[in-house]
Amino acid sequence: MSKDQQRIRRLKTALRKTGLDAIVLRLPENILMAFGVWPLNGFSYGLFTAADGPVALIAPSCEDEEMDGGWADHVIWFVWPRLNAPDPLEVIRAKLCSLARRHQLTQGRIGYEGSFELIAPPHGSGEVRVPAESSIRYLHSILPSAKWSDATPLLYQQRATKTTAEIAKLRVANKVADFGLKKFHDSVEPGISEAELASLAYSECLNLGVGVRGVRHVNVYPQVSSGLDTYRAWRPAVSTGRRRLQEGEIAMLELAVCVDGFWADVTRVKVAGRPSAVQRRAFEALSAAQAAATAAIRPGATAERPHQAAIKVLTEAGFEKQIVHITGHGLGFCYHEPEPFLMPGNMLKLKKGHVCSVEPGVYDPAWGGIRLENNVAVTGDGAELLTHTSNKL
Amino acid sequence: MSKDQQRIRRLKTALRKTGLDAIVLRLPENILMAFGVWPLNGFSYGLFTAADGPVALIAPSCEDEEMDGGWADHVIWFVWPRLNAPDPLEVIRAKLCSLARRHQLTQGRIGYEGSFELIAPPHGSGEVRVPAESSIRYLHSILPSAKWSDATPLLYQQRATKTTAEIAKLRVANKVADFGLKKFHDSVEPGISEAELASLAYSECLNLGVGVRGVRHVNVYPQVSSGLDTYRAWRPAVSTGRRRLQEGEIAMLELAVCVDGFWADVTRVKVAGRPSAVQRRAFEALSAAQAAATAAIRPGATAERPHQAAIKVLTEAGFEKQIVHITGHGLGFCYHEPEPFLMPGNMLKLKKGHVCSVEPGVYDPAWGGIRLENNVAVTGDGAELLTHTSNKL
Repeated sequence: MSKDQQRIRRLKTALRKTGLDAIVLRLPENILMAFGVWPLNGFSYGLFTAADGPVALIAPSCEDEEMDGGWADHVIWFVWPRLNAPDPLEVIRAKLCSLARRHQLTQGRIGYEGSFELIAPPHGSGEVRVPAESSIRYLHSILPSAKWSDATPLLYQQRATKTTAEIAKLRVANKVADFGLKKFHDSVEPGISEAELASLAYSECLNLGVGVRGVRHVNVYPQVSSGLDTYRAWRPAVSTGRRRLQEGEIAMLELAVCVDGFWADVTRVKVAGRPSAVQRRAFEALSAAQAAATAAIRPGATAERPHQAAIKVLTEAGFEKQIVHITGHGLGFCYHEPEPFLMPGNMLKLKKGHVCSVEPGVYDPAWGGIRLENNVAVTGDGAELLTHTSNKL
Repeated sequence: MSKDQQRIRRLKTALRKTGLDAIVLRLPENILMAFGVWPLNGFSYGLFTAADGPVALIAPSCEDEEMDGGWADHVIWFVWPRLNAPDPLEVIRAKLCSLARRHQLTQGRIGYEGSFELIAPPHGSGEVRVPAESSIRYLHSILPSAKWSDATPLLYQQRATKTTAEIAKLRVANKVADFGLKKFHDSVEPGISEAELASLAYSECLNLGVGVRGVRHVNVYPQVSSGLDTYRAWRPAVSTGRRRLQEGEIAMLELAVCVDGFWADVTRVKVAGRPSAVQRRAFEALSAAQAAATAAIRPGATAERPHQAAIKVLTEAGFEKQIVHITGHGLGFCYHEPEPFLMPGNMLKLKKGHVCSVEPGVYDPAWGGIRLENNVAVTGDGAELLTHTSNKL
């Protein structure tokens, strides 16, 4: 990414307003925002100051190839992982100490990531490195006379409003997700299994996504449910099974894609063969509800407005009792972000740069469930659809 | 899983020895160990007491189907996620309070997960829910007169030694990984890309793994590198690219598989076409080094012995300077666990129930890298190989 002055300026201002002299970051999603580089292992430390911005990244030597893209003033390496290397924590301690002295932070007010409870996996997504109590104690021990405070709210607030450059990245993440959605649409037919559909979506996003528009890192998280089991597909963690689709059954693909640290979160349904009357009615109501919610997204509108718009359409179509969940959530630096939630009672004003899902769904034990999910960015005067695969049943 | 009395007994004993009356668990990997059920979202609370063992799981209603398998005395539900449901944290607070009174814990000594920094993703692996500072404050606020302490070391120690039932689960996880390794071996040929190989391994594990031996949840984490890039394949987070294999080039698959919460971590290499002389020499040295390390694994041996055995073979074959990393690490409840590390200077005595990777590797910028990785369980008198796909170049 080229240097995102918009983000740097905003973050510096936010630190000053909160009374912080600096912030020390560890989570890849926050380092991506502040330094324009996505640490693949989650073992980098970023120092961002109110006075000078992105002053330094302390990063493991195994990520040297990743660091081209970022805008840290300095990248400082430690050897990791390698047989007989010095203890990385001791090396990082010395480097942070020296940076703190250079930037007059030894008595400063410094923020850290204390309360992130819902965290994106790094690129090596089989495990996640998080700054737990032990890390917080470690930071305190490095600069014991600094005043440390939990900067989680500040960071979430920063992340809620995306910059122009970040929205460009989310377009690319959605483009990669679109590969998987199209493949899913083309593959649903009687006899295919949930696992096979999930595999096809995975393969298509990875095979076509890596390399497109400069993309380097793609991870794909598909979940497929089918038949009457789609009634339970509102659950956050659906288990893709070996179940095979029969004629007339619905398949639902919930697809999260992470592209160089930026996330898309989309859902499509397709019937194997000929849809039934109730499937058609629900699908049409949901398409209309999604369109109404999207049309209600504009700067200045409250975040409950798009939800109400969707509910109104679904209620008029007779599906009020089949509604289970809210209509959308923030996303971008991870799969789910707190702002803006499109839900009843949320009086938060939407503003340019907010990015959210729009995902009305209805679920009925008698015939199953349907959810349609796109990603949308709030623009200066409305909403930009980031997901381009059209819905079809 | 049927009730694992061996685990329950051990954990109760460990709590008593540490002076803890109870432990409150949140991480799926620890709840899996203590309650025999793998929370798919990471939003369950488990209360395990020194006196009575696995007394209660407080779990979100969306996981009702998962709870069949566990051995909690009581499963207590809260509604999540659902539109207009009561605040789950308030519901959990009331339930934990009532459990604490019933088990005389309001003034008790209670352990929590304070310092887990390397965490397995839950089944919904696109995001990870962790107990950060905010959760720890929340627990304190629920039982303010209890004495809370960080039980991370106790939990890691418990996890280091697997029970008979847990090793049976790790055999199944390796069986699913074997599907991917075989597919990889059969698919490497000139012209195929890294992304295509990763996709094939993913698909094979998912398509064949779900349903085999009662398996319900499979997640697959493949990383493929190729050609001279394999020189850098010792890195923990390799980026699978669109690069296509040419005649005579190495492909390497690092494959992590999570099966109902139990992990396998395996690696294979294969040459597209005819291997060169140096590739053959390295491969043969590594096969011999792996065999020597595995043969050195037995109860009572120090954890550095298998490492030394591998190094000796590699050194004699002239590859000493190409060694980058240690020879193995613990695993099972996640991708990497601290015990036992097979590395120089580790005087920990291996014992029955330890499970580790055996993964010698050599890396040379002149021709690339090779790593061979199996999983092994320490038995009463030696080692059981859990990975059954044979190495072939």
